[in-house]
Amino acid sequence: MGVTINCDMGEGFSLYQCGDDAGLMPHVDIANVACGFHASDPSVMRATVALAAEHGVAVGAHPSFPDRQGFGRREMAMERDELAACLIYQIGALKGFLDAAKLPLNHIKPHGALYGAAMRHEHVANAIADAAEVFGAPLLCMRGTLQEEVYSARGVPFLAEYYADLDYDGAGKLIITRKHDARDPDEAARRVKRVLAENKATTIEGTLIDMRADTICVHSDTPNAVELASAVRQAVREAA
Amino acid sequence: MGVTINCDMGEGFSLYQCGDDAGLMPHVDIANVACGFHASDPSVMRATVALAAEHGVAVGAHPSFPDRQGFGRREMAMERDELAACLIYQIGALKGFLDAAKLPLNHIKPHGALYGAAMRHEHVANAIADAAEVFGAPLLCMRGTLQEEVYSARGVPFLAEYYADLDYDGAGKLIITRKHDARDPDEAARRVKRVLAENKATTIEGTLIDMRADTICVHSDTPNAVELASAVRQAVREAA
Amino acid sequence: MGVTINCDMGEGFSLYQCGDDAGLMPHVDIANVACGFHASDPSVMRATVALAAEHGVAVGAHPSFPDRQGFGRREMAMERDELAACLIYQIGALKGFLDAAKLPLNHIKPHGALYGAAMRHEHVANAIADAAEVFGAPLLCMRGTLQEEVYSARGVPFLAEYYADLDYDGAGKLIITRKHDARDPDEAARRVKRVLAENKATTIEGTLIDMRADTICVHSDTPNAVELASAVRQAVREAA
Amino acid sequence: MGVTINCDMGEGFSLYQCGDDAGLMPHVDIANVACGFHASDPSVMRATVALAAEHGVAVGAHPSFPDRQGFGRREMAMERDELAACLIYQIGALKGFLDAAKLPLNHIKPHGALYGAAMRHEHVANAIADAAEVFGAPLLCMRGTLQEEVYSARGVPFLAEYYADLDYDGAGKLIITRKHDARDPDEAARRVKRVLAENKATTIEGTLIDMRADTICVHSDTPNAVELASAVRQAVREAA
Repeated sequence: MGVTINCDMGEGFSLYQCGDDAGLMPHVDIANVACGFHASDPSVMRATVALAAEHGVAVGAHPSFPDRQGFGRREMAMERDELAACLIYQIGALKGFLDAAKLPLNHIKPHGALYGAAMRHEHVANAIADAAEVFGAPLLCMRGTLQEEVYSARGVPFLAEYYADLDYDGAGKLIITRKHDARDPDEAARRVKRVLAENKATTIEGTLIDMRADTICVHSDTPNAVELASAVRQAVREAA
Repeated sequence: MGVTINCDMGEGFSLYQCGDDAGLMPHVDIANVACGFHASDPSVMRATVALAAEHGVAVGAHPSFPDRQGFGRREMAMERDELAACLIYQIGALKGFLDAAKLPLNHIKPHGALYGAAMRHEHVANAIADAAEVFGAPLLCMRGTLQEEVYSARGVPFLAEYYADLDYDGAGKLIITRKHDARDPDEAARRVKRVLAENKATTIEGTLIDMRADTICVHSDTPNAVELASAVRQAVREAA
Repeated sequence: MGVTINCDMGEGFSLYQCGDDAGLMPHVDIANVACGFHASDPSVMRATVALAAEHGVAVGAHPSFPDRQGFGRREMAMERDELAACLIYQIGALKGFLDAAKLPLNHIKPHGALYGAAMRHEHVANAIADAAEVFGAPLLCMRGTLQEEVYSARGVPFLAEYYADLDYDGAGKLIITRKHDARDPDEAARRVKRVLAENKATTIEGTLIDMRADTICVHSDTPNAVELASAVRQAVREAA
Repeated sequence: MGVTINCDMGEGFSLYQCGDDAGLMPHVDIANVACGFHASDPSVMRATVALAAEHGVAVGAHPSFPDRQGFGRREMAMERDELAACLIYQIGALKGFLDAAKLPLNHIKPHGALYGAAMRHEHVANAIADAAEVFGAPLLCMRGTLQEEVYSARGVPFLAEYYADLDYDGAGKLIITRKHDARDPDEAARRVKRVLAENKATTIEGTLIDMRADTICVHSDTPNAVELASAVRQAVREAA
């Protein structure tokens, strides 16, 4: 596929909306679809898969710690085995809707606190890899972290991602925020182009760090998400 | 497979046990495995699939209304579409564990109030059939009911089941009880033999009704479940 | 208090917003606060009680069937005892936040499908009355229904409510809609004035029915809810 | 009351049993009743309060992290405010059933991972104290830990507890086990007597540590729980 734009989708629940999925779909390549443990429910999942199918967007699973009230942003102490089972459950559930739509499972991207925990705890990264091996789908991950180390050591395929709408500190660490502020689309496009052309990213301190990107993440809950995604995609196309 | 013995399995949850799955596995052919909406959780599901695999027992999904506190025994008013999505979610989740164990999905048996609702509401039977079509697995159902009518009309494959450890009334209706009392294994064996030999079942009123059975259900929470399953299986073998 | 304006509040959950509670609080007298079973969570409940306290709005409990995915709009078959326990749990939980804020529990209003079920099933109305007796708080209810009959027979205090933003049919039945459309504030004000002045309400068929109102309900998810509440409150004041 | 025997109760859920509550009630003074977040449900809570009332056992709340699948044994990263709200919700819910039974809330004992987290994280101990202040009920806690430090500094009343059926290491730390093995009742009685007579406890290494006990904890899921509780209570009475 070349470098893709990925975006979290289907994070509504019950009557609640979250993010402008319909507006974003035309601007992304692959969707990370919530699996009901931090957001979404069976009806939302089915509708999101249908929306992705309409736009030719490839669908991956976006599993989480079991924490709906906390939107999967609260780390939980789970052992490797119970966490792997928890992820297989969620990914399998999403795959049900993909089967119904005759679509393949494109990838797996852990959500929120789970994604963060996989950078600090080997057993978490291993549980994620355990689940990925069941489904034979590549993981999205951050380069230069324990995630990548564990996946590489085990030979589990992964795609490195760069966040167009978040900042990195001098040590290459992503600065994660609960609420995502609007970002300047031109600046995001410039950042992405630099990563693709030079394999370098600008940090919040103004320094450059090594950065590889197989896929660029944009957030659906950034206020100007559609505009941002559109600018980033343009940058990716120009860089190709 | 011929006539099989089916049994609900994996109905524990968290630290809680429910039924002697390990004791029963040697005596059944196909297991209806709970999918986390009325009982079970990802760890229990994985362990139950592993236990079934060890004993060469084929695994089907046992989805439910979303009602863990009520053990899926409370009917809920759900529309066809949201119910179908709810079932696809659960069956997909179970299929994740089957994929991990390299086992096929053998069948689908709706649980408790859902099974009952499918005998009274066409949209419920249709939602079940919708989910079954996604996975291409046969449904377990009761003959002579709205379930069978809907599945037949749509050409959705199903297996007729006979309950060895429950009573039927003169109209052919199953008398469902919250708690299952111990049953005489010899009497259960006799009942099953008659169904297989004569396509007739004895009702609680002493009359005979037409009954066909592709599979015989025994309950894991009947007090003498293991003994009962063993006697019923013997009866099935002798009838073959 | 005289005739009051009541409104469902605190129906957000996790990161999700629902209704403009802050905008509505200045225009209502009593808030029906969700208790976590159809919407809300402990943090939302605490914040909603604090918001009500700031505006001098009296707080009541708004309990539901246990159905977060369905927003409490799907009827569930629950027995009187388990339903009463389910309601005591929710009302008690809300009372915890009222205790923390040193506020009394002002009233109890069943939500959604529970409110509807109490008009059709005596055991449901009785379960609601059982819970109300524990807390000694009056119920909100619709006149001329089974609810009122059961509460009256048992001597459980209640307040009759009139819906300013929904229609009634010729039989006096409320026409409940999943989504509430914007309503003309002037027309709503006229409707309310007629009920207060003449004890008569206009039906969708143009006829008049008997209607008594101790409290007027406005919905927070009507698109022009704030404007509507403001107009209705003005009408109530003029009628006083 | 003097020194009391406390025990976790009401940890069943749905159809599942957990511990022999009926057998234990005659042997304990105060019951820590689960509040639905790690175990229990509204029906179980109501029945447990009724059982305690019958036996003249005082009832306290036993709140937990929101983690039913993990039985509250998995630590969760929650901020002070959201955790305090989570606890107020649970304690309030239990208080609803106490109101119904006209019983006071006797105490509060955090469950499992929450109890442990309060020994390591100041914000967790503070959240627990925040909730306790709302209800004016004393906390159960372990002496010589961060729990006690925080509660003492804030002037929040607490009762020190000693575990009759668990071991302590040389540093005074409780050795917590997922499954509780049967214990020799005579040895447990001797341990308790020494604590009460000498304010000293024997560690697993054979040394003595300082230990004060206002209440003695026995677990309902120890295999010989009834026998153990009975022996420990006898020891407490003899020491009085």
